[in-house]
Amino acid sequence: MTDLFWPGDHLAGDLMSDDAFLAAMVGVEQAWLGCLVDAGIAPADARADLRVADGDVETIARRADVDGNPVSALVALLRDRSDGETARWLHRGLTSQDVLDTALVICLRDVLIRVGAECTAQVRALSDLIETHRGAPVLAHTLTQAALPSTLGVKIARWLGGVLDAAEPLTGLRTALPVQVGGAAGTLAATTELAGSVDAALALSDALADELMLAPALPWHTTRSPLTRIGDALVTCCDAWGHIAADVTTGSRPEIGELAEGSGGGSSTMPHKNNPVRAVLIRRAALTAGPLGAILHAASAESVDERSDGAWHAEWATLRTLARRTVVAAAHTSDLVCGLRIDETRAAANLAAVEGVLSEQWTMTELTGRPAFSDYTGAADRIVDATLSRARRFLEESS
Amino acid sequence: MTDLFWPGDHLAGDLMSDDAFLAAMVGVEQAWLGCLVDAGIAPADARADLRVADGDVETIARRADVDGNPVSALVALLRDRSDGETARWLHRGLTSQDVLDTALVICLRDVLIRVGAECTAQVRALSDLIETHRGAPVLAHTLTQAALPSTLGVKIARWLGGVLDAAEPLTGLRTALPVQVGGAAGTLAATTELAGSVDAALALSDALADELMLAPALPWHTTRSPLTRIGDALVTCCDAWGHIAADVTTGSRPEIGELAEGSGGGSSTMPHKNNPVRAVLIRRAALTAGPLGAILHAASAESVDERSDGAWHAEWATLRTLARRTVVAAAHTSDLVCGLRIDETRAAANLAAVEGVLSEQWTMTELTGRPAFSDYTGAADRIVDATLSRARRFLEESS
Amino acid sequence: MTDLFWPGDHLAGDLMSDDAFLAAMVGVEQAWLGCLVDAGIAPADARADLRVADGDVETIARRADVDGNPVSALVALLRDRSDGETARWLHRGLTSQDVLDTALVICLRDVLIRVGAECTAQVRALSDLIETHRGAPVLAHTLTQAALPSTLGVKIARWLGGVLDAAEPLTGLRTALPVQVGGAAGTLAATTELAGSVDAALALSDALADELMLAPALPWHTTRSPLTRIGDALVTCCDAWGHIAADVTTGSRPEIGELAEGSGGGSSTMPHKNNPVRAVLIRRAALTAGPLGAILHAASAESVDERSDGAWHAEWATLRTLARRTVVAAAHTSDLVCGLRIDETRAAANLAAVEGVLSEQWTMTELTGRPAFSDYTGAADRIVDATLSRARRFLEESS
Amino acid sequence: MTDLFWPGDHLAGDLMSDDAFLAAMVGVEQAWLGCLVDAGIAPADARADLRVADGDVETIARRADVDGNPVSALVALLRDRSDGETARWLHRGLTSQDVLDTALVICLRDVLIRVGAECTAQVRALSDLIETHRGAPVLAHTLTQAALPSTLGVKIARWLGGVLDAAEPLTGLRTALPVQVGGAAGTLAATTELAGSVDAALALSDALADELMLAPALPWHTTRSPLTRIGDALVTCCDAWGHIAADVTTGSRPEIGELAEGSGGGSSTMPHKNNPVRAVLIRRAALTAGPLGAILHAASAESVDERSDGAWHAEWATLRTLARRTVVAAAHTSDLVCGLRIDETRAAANLAAVEGVLSEQWTMTELTGRPAFSDYTGAADRIVDATLSRARRFLEESS
Repeated sequence: MTDLFWPGDHLAGDLMSDDAFLAAMVGVEQAWLGCLVDAGIAPADARADLRVADGDVETIARRADVDGNPVSALVALLRDRSDGETARWLHRGLTSQDVLDTALVICLRDVLIRVGAECTAQVRALSDLIETHRGAPVLAHTLTQAALPSTLGVKIARWLGGVLDAAEPLTGLRTALPVQVGGAAGTLAATTELAGSVDAALALSDALADELMLAPALPWHTTRSPLTRIGDALVTCCDAWGHIAADVTTGSRPEIGELAEGSGGGSSTMPHKNNPVRAVLIRRAALTAGPLGAILHAASAESVDERSDGAWHAEWATLRTLARRTVVAAAHTSDLVCGLRIDETRAAANLAAVEGVLSEQWTMTELTGRPAFSDYTGAADRIVDATLSRARRFLEESS
Repeated sequence: MTDLFWPGDHLAGDLMSDDAFLAAMVGVEQAWLGCLVDAGIAPADARADLRVADGDVETIARRADVDGNPVSALVALLRDRSDGETARWLHRGLTSQDVLDTALVICLRDVLIRVGAECTAQVRALSDLIETHRGAPVLAHTLTQAALPSTLGVKIARWLGGVLDAAEPLTGLRTALPVQVGGAAGTLAATTELAGSVDAALALSDALADELMLAPALPWHTTRSPLTRIGDALVTCCDAWGHIAADVTTGSRPEIGELAEGSGGGSSTMPHKNNPVRAVLIRRAALTAGPLGAILHAASAESVDERSDGAWHAEWATLRTLARRTVVAAAHTSDLVCGLRIDETRAAANLAAVEGVLSEQWTMTELTGRPAFSDYTGAADRIVDATLSRARRFLEESS
Repeated sequence: MTDLFWPGDHLAGDLMSDDAFLAAMVGVEQAWLGCLVDAGIAPADARADLRVADGDVETIARRADVDGNPVSALVALLRDRSDGETARWLHRGLTSQDVLDTALVICLRDVLIRVGAECTAQVRALSDLIETHRGAPVLAHTLTQAALPSTLGVKIARWLGGVLDAAEPLTGLRTALPVQVGGAAGTLAATTELAGSVDAALALSDALADELMLAPALPWHTTRSPLTRIGDALVTCCDAWGHIAADVTTGSRPEIGELAEGSGGGSSTMPHKNNPVRAVLIRRAALTAGPLGAILHAASAESVDERSDGAWHAEWATLRTLARRTVVAAAHTSDLVCGLRIDETRAAANLAAVEGVLSEQWTMTELTGRPAFSDYTGAADRIVDATLSRARRFLEESS
Repeated sequence: MTDLFWPGDHLAGDLMSDDAFLAAMVGVEQAWLGCLVDAGIAPADARADLRVADGDVETIARRADVDGNPVSALVALLRDRSDGETARWLHRGLTSQDVLDTALVICLRDVLIRVGAECTAQVRALSDLIETHRGAPVLAHTLTQAALPSTLGVKIARWLGGVLDAAEPLTGLRTALPVQVGGAAGTLAATTELAGSVDAALALSDALADELMLAPALPWHTTRSPLTRIGDALVTCCDAWGHIAADVTTGSRPEIGELAEGSGGGSSTMPHKNNPVRAVLIRRAALTAGPLGAILHAASAESVDERSDGAWHAEWATLRTLARRTVVAAAHTSDLVCGLRIDETRAAANLAAVEGVLSEQWTMTELTGRPAFSDYTGAADRIVDATLSRARRFLEESS
């Protein structure tokens, strides 16, 4: 799978690919069929290995246009290929949205795991980078202008703080991913009829959650906060990486020259260039993530009835695109921070070149009447320490 | 204060108004001055009551165009009006962004409190509404079409679930609102110089947080997750209310006639109309909230250096607009759900009019070989109970 | 090619597919090489048929991650496979962005042609629909409530007006699509060096435009209005179709029953359903188009230097997604309006059921003192006529 | 009127203020009343000067929350204050949306005039700037890295080209602004009843357009392309200015030092700073404009029935905010380009510092076998000339 329009897309591998999505839907049908048999609702010989083949994704995708979603076509195909009792019992009690939403959530779990792993790698790399450069002087800029002396340690600690803010909620989100079992109207009516009692129906829903290692949940067909929450978290990751990338593209301008990518990209016509390609591609992702998150909110806000008439359908590809791009940006950022080259000499020179960079300090010493401290980087070191401690806690908890 | 372009804006009162924002900024300067005196850095006679007058907001707003933010103008004005030691010491150690960000956060706290209170009222009203109508039959719709029988209890429980999803995180967000104290470059350099040691500087930052009842925090000048988090939470509230409003505008169509606002709005030319005005205005808010949240993410993702060159400035009015609109939509939703009139007879008639609405049940009984249950609403009652329990826990915890 | 996450995607065929994009890029290189030979800059034996194979798209896509765009990899691959003079001369004078932007524009041309053709089909179908139903009475709704009597003719004329608004600018946009030839810094420096004079360099740029049937243009590497203009036009199409779809999903609610899709989609569990699937999928597209257009504007607004550091890269996939979705929604809308079934009896009954629907008329006759007109649909007929005339002009001009 | 959250807001003066909006609505009612009298429908003594007072905006704004829009309250207030025949006849035939939409359009006309004037000023200033600096050498950057030599003339010509792209369509948009007269259901039913014939009713609509100097139009209550078109144009302006601002903030970094604002802003704590405040505030506007434009598209796409249930209401404040911000950014940009200081020496030095900046030229001369041209700026001069010619044509046409 490639995407010529989104360089780096292959780094997301099979995450939320058509194949992965189809496999997840089949997995849901398979698990549900197992639950029906385990509960004694379907006969033992209904149990079967549901299989789809390579070409099926094409068939199902085309057919999805007729029904508005791929599940009807999948169920029809599975029934066609199955023997009597299997064909008779599979999908019973579920509605298309149950299968599709649960499959989405399963795919998103893999995405959250991967993004979490990349964040962990970044936290490690940034911590190392801080240790190496923590005291090196650098010019702080506000509104692009020279402000005060600072340290590379603080600069990188800010990046790290952003990554930690984004990464810390990921585990909680992953373990709260809800199963979707509601049936046609979100009441589990068919399942109750099949199971013979409401208790038994609810137990089936919980059994499916258990089987798929998802959180048990009431039907959320038109309550889409479980998805906007994930969307917001992914966007927040891209924000944090966008910040790093903006600092890197800025710092690698030839007139500044403090930062450089380990291995930048070349030019089709200017062989001397070392483009900050990782940073450029990360900035690209950061620019597009927010509006994708906003689409998920728009879809949630347009929820109506027991299944929405378009809002639900807008979520699938939006989540796929946002998720894959987040993974690609995660990989790019890991790469960027692992390979980042920092020119301390150049940073020191840029700082030294600014006249009056200590004027604020002079104002302060005039106020205190005490001699000036030897440097003017305040609590820089303590900020670095506090951020490194937080990073260590994160690494311990996520290991 | 009015907004002729956003009917209902006055319901947000002074929340995040120009006056409230200015008062919050003055409050930050006041508290910081107190901290400087308390710490023995500024002399006791620097303590003073910083005052601004009604006309000052105009002066400061115009001057803010020169400096790019209102704080320089405010500080100049306060110094002009203050006696020697006060003028000499106020704002020392802070940067404009410290004052502005902390003031924003203070204003947002009031917003979160108000939104939380409205949510609580909604949770109560929806719980009551469920108790009154829980068993009443209603037609469930998927993709706008007749699906299955359901109950009004489940329908309202879904609204309630959405409100709870949105409301539950608000308290946590409110108590985590961070103070912003970093000084010009986010290193507390000036404060350290004034306080004589890093420990003393950090203690000052914590004292300010304490005084303003905010969470102590490392500087977050270009780490904007504290704001996107709040933005996302407000948008999520609007989503939940948008869902309710969409169901209400749909259900109050004359051909459906199941729902009606307690007191709808009139028409300038058709006296017989009873427009679902609350719901219409809520839908308006829901439509605009997501893109405002996305602007906050874009601003966060564009963070650069030690103070961003435009991204920071884009946040202020975006937060104000999003926050006020959320409060107005909150008030409209409380009003809507408190006054909602439900026509159970009409709901029952609409359900009865659908041919074949039990066809799924027949399929199921064919499978089970058992006689059909007397109704076909499955776990509706249990879903309602579970949601009501969750609502009670929420009310207990938030009381 | 399928997209399991966006049912109907196959309806866009190869438009803006990876293959089409690669073919367009190769086409640009091919045409440029031809221009160099024609101008006597490259020797005649440099002329060659540049070929890419099926697997190349994969290779190039992966390599694009290294350079940040696919052109370097493409050029390397073409040079590898070409003989001496061809390898020596191809791509000379161009920069990656020249090739990529021109290829994008070529792909967009095909999209605009297809969308235009669908609009033409819709204009025809809607005109026919109007002729069939123009006088049939229907209830007009404002804010979802019963307003006044109207006619199906006016209702459909409004849809038609929206489609015409969206369709009329498409031809102008298509013929103004600009070639991109600027070289590494947008100055045609390399081409001037090769061509021996500025005049000859500019003539080459015009020759390429001519060869590719694009408009000649100054370099627009960081002036992205040519793309936002197309994005806005595509979004405006989706808006117009979204309006139709919203009326259709509403009008096909069982309680209203005035509209039905010719062949709706089924349900995986409720065989009696006839879902308005075209309308639902169109609404999905309408919901996501605006934010995609906004990303193009964000990219344009972030333009910097002579080639942007991320903003440019954000455009490609955004355009692809927006374009393909617009084509799919175009096809769905054509299908929808061609097959739409209208129940005049039901419409008349819904109107008749409203008490007081003529109260406004009574107020007016009280004012005039004249007897009431026999119907109360005002200029409905003339609005229909005016819209039909406009449609005929459009069809004449686009034929 | 101030906006402490959006420094510079006062530069938009009364454009789209509450007062201007109310005055425009009153103007519509006034003109319509005149048309009714002129047409002999209302008696001559119905003619009256409709007045509103200062406090009325507050009353109407609060009341608008009840009805969902401000027109009902305005009409009630006007009737209260008017004598018999005036009270009896005013607003007859119109619906709230007619008044509100036409008033919006009137306000937008003033905005388009102002933005057009600012663009004209910018075109002049940029042309002058080009004349002064056209040949001065500067380093071109791609992906932030050193690319090739270029000239300041080309750099500024690119800014100018973007402004022209944005400015050229404004006049056409302004003259096409449509009146809105449709009555309650968009059929002119009440007006037809009053006027006695459809011809007379349509003549009234045209008379109103004529009186208000707007384009005559069929009702467009749920066809919102007239507004999205304006929104897109305003966003496109902000994009063009954002590009300039991004180049200015970049070029004014201390390490680059090629550009500086005429009079930048100060810092509350660092007196040595000269912040690029205009550019920073323009970037802020550019960052928020696109999502506001997307809200207008979302509202258009959600159009339904004969008056939308929320989508219409979302447009008003969105247009106000987008319009005022565009005006402010226009003023900031005029200011920026009029006062911009360019350091040619620094630009030349930055260029000279790059090793290998002519390596592309060497490759080319190797190909041609001719000696290298004395500079390597290709068609820079001709690009400048072409852009200046275009600017002159624009100035002639807009004078």
